[in-house]
Amino acid sequence: MIRQLREQISDTDRSIVEAINTRLKLVARLKRYKEERGLDFVDPEREEWMLSYLLRANRGPLSAEGLRELFTEILDLTKREVGRSQAP
Amino acid sequence: MIRQLREQISDTDRSIVEAINTRLKLVARLKRYKEERGLDFVDPEREEWMLSYLLRANRGPLSAEGLRELFTEILDLTKREVGRSQAP
Repeated sequence: MIRQLREQISDTDRSIVEAINTRLKLVARLKRYKEERGLDFVDPEREEWMLSYLLRANRGPLSAEGLRELFTEILDLTKREVGRSQAP
Repeated sequence: MIRQLREQISDTDRSIVEAINTRLKLVARLKRYKEERGLDFVDPEREEWMLSYLLRANRGPLSAEGLRELFTEILDLTKREVGRSQAP
């Protein structure tokens, strides 16, 4: 039982890491596209919209407070990682 | 093009939130199971193992440093949320 649950947790964690990698690739493409057109990369209004979209989509048990915290961390991480991978 | 990328990013974020919810449910079940048997819930050795497993599984572009940071945040969040949802 413990082993089975742990395997399911590991599978879930791997899928989270894969989704984060997908997110980084998409954001890097969006950044490149916007930069080529002289547009600002960071868009606080869009970030606000996305947070409220996710708050509506969230079916729990993750709390609204926990989601806010997770999303803040993912946005910070994305900015650092996309900056890093595009450094010369 | 921007709209298309944003939609894909939103889909990815929704799948991350869903995976976190799955993780919380699994960990809550594991916690209950272990507590009923008088076992410690937090297992630092297991957490170390999971981190090295994810580092091996990670195909990038997420860096090892970024993965460590993300995983630390997810473990902290999980402990707080699972504690919260089981409070009387």
